[in-house]
Amino acid sequence: MSKNAVILFSGGLDSTTCLALAKKEGFDCLALSFSYSQRHSSELIAAKKIADKLGVKHQVFHIPINQFAGSALTDDQISVPETHGASDGIPSTYVPARNTIFLSVALGWAEVTDAQDIFVGISSVDYSGYPDCRPEYLNAFQNLANLATKAGVEGRSLQIQAPLIHLSKADTIRLGIDLGVDYSQTVSCYQANENGEACGKCDSCGLRKKGFEEAGVDDPTRYFS
Amino acid sequence: MSKNAVILFSGGLDSTTCLALAKKEGFDCLALSFSYSQRHSSELIAAKKIADKLGVKHQVFHIPINQFAGSALTDDQISVPETHGASDGIPSTYVPARNTIFLSVALGWAEVTDAQDIFVGISSVDYSGYPDCRPEYLNAFQNLANLATKAGVEGRSLQIQAPLIHLSKADTIRLGIDLGVDYSQTVSCYQANENGEACGKCDSCGLRKKGFEEAGVDDPTRYFS
Repeated sequence: MSKNAVILFSGGLDSTTCLALAKKEGFDCLALSFSYSQRHSSELIAAKKIADKLGVKHQVFHIPINQFAGSALTDDQISVPETHGASDGIPSTYVPARNTIFLSVALGWAEVTDAQDIFVGISSVDYSGYPDCRPEYLNAFQNLANLATKAGVEGRSLQIQAPLIHLSKADTIRLGIDLGVDYSQTVSCYQANENGEACGKCDSCGLRKKGFEEAGVDDPTRYFS
Repeated sequence: MSKNAVILFSGGLDSTTCLALAKKEGFDCLALSFSYSQRHSSELIAAKKIADKLGVKHQVFHIPINQFAGSALTDDQISVPETHGASDGIPSTYVPARNTIFLSVALGWAEVTDAQDIFVGISSVDYSGYPDCRPEYLNAFQNLANLATKAGVEGRSLQIQAPLIHLSKADTIRLGIDLGVDYSQTVSCYQANENGEACGKCDSCGLRKKGFEEAGVDDPTRYFS
């Protein structure tokens, strides 16, 4: 049985925890980051540093999602909202079909590297109201993956592993600290500067701050304001 | 109800028939082609010409799938096999997770254009043995699409329409001729030259030739050999 795994890896708090966990479980990890015309590239720089430090392979896949209009994360005409915590609706930072596109590319990499496991650091607890962060969504993707691929057809079942799915941000932080994750190197902010320093104001920063508070852990995040 | 539709459109025989059908059914069509480091760009040129002639919007999405290794269609180290007709196994022309990636991008476009219908010219009859050409695969994608998106969450159900799924190549050709499709402009060949002329030898050419024979229609394809 293959112990190769592909890990969706942004260099943020959740995916870094996920990568550390997959490594601890003995997987030979390919950390997969996306260059998708984000507002900043500091998360890609952080991702590479973290992957190097963990001694895992790192791959950046270029996909110009700015060909879509309609999201504050890729469209300079829409400003990033300064709200804290999960809201009721779907926020403007939602990128159309992003997780589906990213998981599809991860599936391609899983095929070419003979990996049967794809790890994704999604949580359905402290999340931002994106529909593609829910357990039923991930189950549907796993079902699709097994119908879509040579591996699935030949009976080598693909697993979408979302070990953080039922964890709060505080739980994730506690898990990561047990695994030895250095969160000062991770970048979660939607508008971090080139040094990987965070704004402290966006939705993502708000969830992260609250997580450290609730975990009773000093927040090691480097803020620029 | 929106009558916008996104059509996966390669400029080949099947997707051109599919586009003509969606247009006849009254959809406001966005024809979506992919530039994915194919061996030739003649199918993109053909796609644009056909879309212009039909008077539908045409969008090319750039996605560098050659970042994957492992398929004869994107990897110059693997030669395209010269076999005719469907074979038992999965051929080397299979691109890892291709339909899943393409449908995911179409889903993103459906979200930003408020389309509830995505058309794909897949057939499970005269196909090349790709696992992602089967009805159960498309059903799984539709299920995923409705869990993944704002539209699905808000109850505006997304449909993956595959009107050719149960048609043989000959049936598709008969349908297209009824719809007025000019097949001399379509490019199906895996290694067409820059003039859109076909090799007549690859798997795709073989299936197409057989289709015209079975339909009892003169093959209008332009061959270079």
